[in-house]
Amino acid sequence: MNKAVRIIGIDPGLRRCGWGIIASEGSRLAFVACGTITPPVDGSLADRLAVLYSALTQVLERHAPDEAAVEETFVNAGARSALLLGQARGVALMTPAAHGLPVAEYAANLVKKSVVGTGHAEKGQVGLMVKLLLPAADVKGADEADALAIAICHAHHRVAAQRLKASA
Amino acid sequence: MNKAVRIIGIDPGLRRCGWGIIASEGSRLAFVACGTITPPVDGSLADRLAVLYSALTQVLERHAPDEAAVEETFVNAGARSALLLGQARGVALMTPAAHGLPVAEYAANLVKKSVVGTGHAEKGQVGLMVKLLLPAADVKGADEADALAIAICHAHHRVAAQRLKASA
Repeated sequence: MNKAVRIIGIDPGLRRCGWGIIASEGSRLAFVACGTITPPVDGSLADRLAVLYSALTQVLERHAPDEAAVEETFVNAGARSALLLGQARGVALMTPAAHGLPVAEYAANLVKKSVVGTGHAEKGQVGLMVKLLLPAADVKGADEADALAIAICHAHHRVAAQRLKASA
Repeated sequence: MNKAVRIIGIDPGLRRCGWGIIASEGSRLAFVACGTITPPVDGSLADRLAVLYSALTQVLERHAPDEAAVEETFVNAGARSALLLGQARGVALMTPAAHGLPVAEYAANLVKKSVVGTGHAEKGQVGLMVKLLLPAADVKGADEADALAIAICHAHHRVAAQRLKASA
């Protein structure tokens, strides 16, 4: 039960897709790697999605995470933006599942609450807390910080779920 | 220029994704195969998208199409439905591109116009014309008929584009 588990968090996007991997062992967390995938903006939509897929596949093959977590998208934009974001999100959800990983989804405010303690945190606060929880993290932008926050959120929730199961 | 080209048309959807493959040689069209992918509705969203990906990959590997065409989605529903459809559409666009196929997109009314002659055709009319243009087609539902219509639309447009290029 206390074996270290590698978790990849993914913050989907067609222009910038952040990913972050942590190792979780009991209540200890450790930074593994993070990065941002930026498919070229001048290709066809299909080609840009294929770049996203192949870059995510490389990350999965290099770092071999055991589980994945993706932020649930809060849609407050129009249907057109939702469709565009959905296309990138479909690839971000599908890729780890196609590699055999269980993929969890968490609402954005649950991710913030897990990391900062409130569901209404600012972007900057999430980044600061990620840096505090993962001092070794080499975070180069908000997308990577968000991706690591999603991974941390999953680490907290999977431990809670296991304790619940153990005490049942 | 008159070499036969295999075209796959895809009508994306998470519950039902239609696909249809035709061979196009000059102005002649021939039916190759069609089908409907129905990912199980009880899995996680990520797993359902992974089933869609692996089923589409099987189709591409078995029938080896040269080019792909996907209908552009007209979003008249809310942002939530657009996000859901976008996720399936992202996988449908990405999968042929990841296999090295060029992927074209056509608006729904252009597809109808190519096949029926008017952009405001009923679903039933599309099915009838597909049957007329591809007498050998074994079409088992509207999703497959739509997918074949998308492939036919691409066959027409790619020939026109080649003639334009040849006369330039």
